[in-house]
Amino acid sequence: MSPATKSASKSAPKSVPKKAAAQSPQPKATTPPADGIHPGSLLSITQLSLEEVSNILALAERLAGEPLSKHATLLENRKLALLFYESSTRTRTSFELAAKSLGAMTTLVSDKSSSIEKGESLKDTGLTLRALGAECIILRHNASGSPYLLAKHTGLPVLNAGDGMHEHPSQALLDLRTILSRLGKKQAVTETTLDGITVCITGDILHSRVARSNALLLPRLGAKVILCGPQQLLPPEAVDLSPGITLERDFDKALQQSQVAMMLRIQKERLAGMQIDLADYQKQYQLNEDRYFKHAPNAVVMHPGPMIRGLEITADIADGPSSAIEEQVRNGLAIRMALLARALNGGAA
Amino acid sequence: MSPATKSASKSAPKSVPKKAAAQSPQPKATTPPADGIHPGSLLSITQLSLEEVSNILALAERLAGEPLSKHATLLENRKLALLFYESSTRTRTSFELAAKSLGAMTTLVSDKSSSIEKGESLKDTGLTLRALGAECIILRHNASGSPYLLAKHTGLPVLNAGDGMHEHPSQALLDLRTILSRLGKKQAVTETTLDGITVCITGDILHSRVARSNALLLPRLGAKVILCGPQQLLPPEAVDLSPGITLERDFDKALQQSQVAMMLRIQKERLAGMQIDLADYQKQYQLNEDRYFKHAPNAVVMHPGPMIRGLEITADIADGPSSAIEEQVRNGLAIRMALLARALNGGAA
Amino acid sequence: MSPATKSASKSAPKSVPKKAAAQSPQPKATTPPADGIHPGSLLSITQLSLEEVSNILALAERLAGEPLSKHATLLENRKLALLFYESSTRTRTSFELAAKSLGAMTTLVSDKSSSIEKGESLKDTGLTLRALGAECIILRHNASGSPYLLAKHTGLPVLNAGDGMHEHPSQALLDLRTILSRLGKKQAVTETTLDGITVCITGDILHSRVARSNALLLPRLGAKVILCGPQQLLPPEAVDLSPGITLERDFDKALQQSQVAMMLRIQKERLAGMQIDLADYQKQYQLNEDRYFKHAPNAVVMHPGPMIRGLEITADIADGPSSAIEEQVRNGLAIRMALLARALNGGAA
Repeated sequence: MSPATKSASKSAPKSVPKKAAAQSPQPKATTPPADGIHPGSLLSITQLSLEEVSNILALAERLAGEPLSKHATLLENRKLALLFYESSTRTRTSFELAAKSLGAMTTLVSDKSSSIEKGESLKDTGLTLRALGAECIILRHNASGSPYLLAKHTGLPVLNAGDGMHEHPSQALLDLRTILSRLGKKQAVTETTLDGITVCITGDILHSRVARSNALLLPRLGAKVILCGPQQLLPPEAVDLSPGITLERDFDKALQQSQVAMMLRIQKERLAGMQIDLADYQKQYQLNEDRYFKHAPNAVVMHPGPMIRGLEITADIADGPSSAIEEQVRNGLAIRMALLARALNGGAA
Repeated sequence: MSPATKSASKSAPKSVPKKAAAQSPQPKATTPPADGIHPGSLLSITQLSLEEVSNILALAERLAGEPLSKHATLLENRKLALLFYESSTRTRTSFELAAKSLGAMTTLVSDKSSSIEKGESLKDTGLTLRALGAECIILRHNASGSPYLLAKHTGLPVLNAGDGMHEHPSQALLDLRTILSRLGKKQAVTETTLDGITVCITGDILHSRVARSNALLLPRLGAKVILCGPQQLLPPEAVDLSPGITLERDFDKALQQSQVAMMLRIQKERLAGMQIDLADYQKQYQLNEDRYFKHAPNAVVMHPGPMIRGLEITADIADGPSSAIEEQVRNGLAIRMALLARALNGGAA
Repeated sequence: MSPATKSASKSAPKSVPKKAAAQSPQPKATTPPADGIHPGSLLSITQLSLEEVSNILALAERLAGEPLSKHATLLENRKLALLFYESSTRTRTSFELAAKSLGAMTTLVSDKSSSIEKGESLKDTGLTLRALGAECIILRHNASGSPYLLAKHTGLPVLNAGDGMHEHPSQALLDLRTILSRLGKKQAVTETTLDGITVCITGDILHSRVARSNALLLPRLGAKVILCGPQQLLPPEAVDLSPGITLERDFDKALQQSQVAMMLRIQKERLAGMQIDLADYQKQYQLNEDRYFKHAPNAVVMHPGPMIRGLEITADIADGPSSAIEEQVRNGLAIRMALLARALNGGAA
């Protein structure tokens, strides 16, 4: 074990008592939404109790399993706004197709063609969308915490589709669905579901809301999370994010302990800006066949995308049988249908 | 009364004889559309007789009042094109959701991703959209008069969603619906409906199509319109726009006479370009609590958006009980549903 | 006949034996899709047998002739992705409205607001769209051959909506439908359908995928194709594109032989870059009334758009009775509905 991992131990989370869910007969959020926040919102993965997580997973499972025609009118005549202040293919398209699959009307407001350019505040854009009949807003924004602000001001269910370097909770849920399915676990989760499982997240942890949301969720189910990357992309304080997290600078050592290898996108420009040598980075942190078969030949390979083949991951691994990358996207559609049904129908479907 | 307001008096409009609507049993436009213009078009607010305005308001009232499912297939299988040469959130989204609420198919063509970039003329873009099956075009364009050109060349109903500094007729209608509702007036309007009511429009009048369309409509219902702002944003000739209009440079004096205070967005860059001091402008023309409660404590507060809080209006006023700003947006949806039904179904709904 | 046209003669195509279609009872592509390419794809016009062309034309004829309500649910609950790496109004809108007319769900991914900006490969974008449930991808891309790549990697039906300077097969089909209809020919085509017909394509041949796809299709039906333009925009090797093609630098001579005059858009910047004098170009190659009535007074006038009036074509010709330009757009909608039905339903409709 490297010195970096010594400081962390798998103790019970301080803020998330291990027995909380079991003691409470009702769904209970670990961080309950503040007053005025619509309970159908998903702002942070920490807001969901494990019972709520299980309910969302169960609904996703059902929606993914039945023919489209079964739920094609579930949200008929309901209006959704997709409010995207950052570019996005997969998340935007995933939410959009999820909404349309349930029969909802969508409108897309993006920073490319909107009053956003004119300096209107997020609050006013939200109030405008609400007044136009939007019953739920899906928000991607570069400012951490903006979904909370929007939910507070509009009173509408707001789904956080990524806020700055903060959170990407629907990604954590789709990743969880993928992990459970690949490891043959039940979708009804408890605090011991992932006992004995180690997930290693490797790459630009510092800037990754995906890493953050996963690191906040997985330990609550008993998993150990190893964060892996060089100093500049993974500051030592990351270990304090949540109990159950350790740091490991040596990718090979991290892989040896892991049942799941989650790779993150690396931006060349960012490496250059941090004076990290690209070839050196790849040598130490790229997931390629040599490394994979030597250290973790059975690990499930995951990547939230967009992926740069040949940089953080090689094509043979990305396209290989252990890769769950497309499955993640598929699960994203199911999870987002479930989140929309939860937001607009209280989960009844 | 300041010298600027002396020149105007509330006499009967020259070009809009006071008895015109009453004398005619059929709907009659004050400026009837020229040959070849589809009668379902809305190019300028001046084209509508008060009877037509009443019909649109009545249809909007009905559509806003009934459940969505009642009109969800009204425009089923009908195709609409949204042709936007300028950025817009609220107007584009409002028309788009209005169309989708009535079951119509929409396609968005914006200057960001279209042949517009390739130098194709508006005429040819319009003919192309018509040939693709569009039965109505909603146009936002930076050139005054372009909706007329498009309507003339395509023969399709064209809805003007803002043309340069010229007009924004659907905004005038939604503002009217808001004023009538806030003042407890009936939606069936006549030339005396707003007798005794003064609406003060304050800010960048020179560049505002919203101000123009409102100033062209409200006096026809008996309202007095005060335009207010500094010389550079409100040239003296504005008073000639329509009978029933006066100019007032002193915002406090304007407010004292007004039952409705309509604020317009101020662009910092524009002020700078005109060498108007920002702090000075705010001191003289910002609608804030002090000014509001001292001079017009019961006035209805309106703003077409996007609004810059803290510049032309303070947050306490924008969010206060007298603010009808969100109601304007809601009314916009209803008015635009009515305009679409009128354009495509002759108003039958 | 100019020297440039001497080298070509109307011999039977080498790679497309004249009797192929007749000998074979089943539909047979002249260039059958390679392994792993979905047969509902349309990557190149050369992939279609004349029997398949006839089937597509027949389906387009039927869909264009019947009321919208007849096919409004044909592709209900089916998902399509429009993946546009280049700006486009007419092609994108045409495919989009075709899809929506058949009841399909669409999502637009454009280079303006997507992961494309983040360097994701076409392959991964395609796999993502497939995992999101897209059953067909309509691709516009600046790289020749990219639709083939996408079809190969996804296994989905891919419709080529223009790839670089390579092909635009749906345009060739809609042009064919237009030509057949204007010349009073049956939509069931054979290798002699266009015997005796000459189509002259004039302008920037070098950069035109429209010219290319038309030149590859029309000679297979017996038509003679004359390519016309100055050296810089029409290199001598163009004659080798397909049998049945000749080159002619003199536009008047080309027109004299033609029943169809297809004009291509000219970009001023490109002329300037090639040091072609604009006035000189217009004098030699513009289609105007003088030239038209003198040399080809009955020719059908076509243009794929976007058209620059007053440059390659004058307004009187573009809007005249011989112009089939809007008909081309209308036929585009019908052809694309047929292509979508073929891609998703195997042509059953």
